[in-house]
Amino acid sequence: MATTEGPPRDAIDIVDVMAALGNRRRLEIVAALADGQERTCGVLRGQTPKSTMTHHWRTLRDAGVIWQRPHGREHMLRLRREDLEARFPGLLDAVL
Amino acid sequence: MATTEGPPRDAIDIVDVMAALGNRRRLEIVAALADGQERTCGVLRGQTPKSTMTHHWRTLRDAGVIWQRPHGREHMLRLRREDLEARFPGLLDAVL
Repeated sequence: MATTEGPPRDAIDIVDVMAALGNRRRLEIVAALADGQERTCGVLRGQTPKSTMTHHWRTLRDAGVIWQRPHGREHMLRLRREDLEARFPGLLDAVL
Repeated sequence: MATTEGPPRDAIDIVDVMAALGNRRRLEIVAALADGQERTCGVLRGQTPKSTMTHHWRTLRDAGVIWQRPHGREHMLRLRREDLEARFPGLLDAVL
């Protein structure tokens, strides 16, 4: 699957992940993606301004928390559950 | 035990905890306190400037990650392991 960039599994850094999750809106996004299904950014955005969400997507993607791939005029987003579970077993269950 | 302020267990917020741990120096401090023993701030500070560490202690304390109590001219610090485990089971094990 083609995706915009993000770290490979082995390069996911716990500090980046913690910082990415240390924000209520981003933690809500991760919770909304917890089932592992892809969703469009539009569905997840709600009433939050697009520019704000663009920052959140980038933070989550660069930390290795989500995959983001172009899909028409939107993006599809998916939690990197398997990668996070492999790197930091139990983390998502503890947080969500 | 008299301590400087920090949230009671039930008020510890996962967002604050994640944000507090989303910093390499603070994560090192938490790792150094992982055994649950009290340590002086001086021992943990290493070569980091005092003012920088004061910010880190406050962030960790206000998030409910550590207890901090005066001890002569220093502070004693202790990880709130039981409180964090009660609130977010498995989190510390996943992170440390």
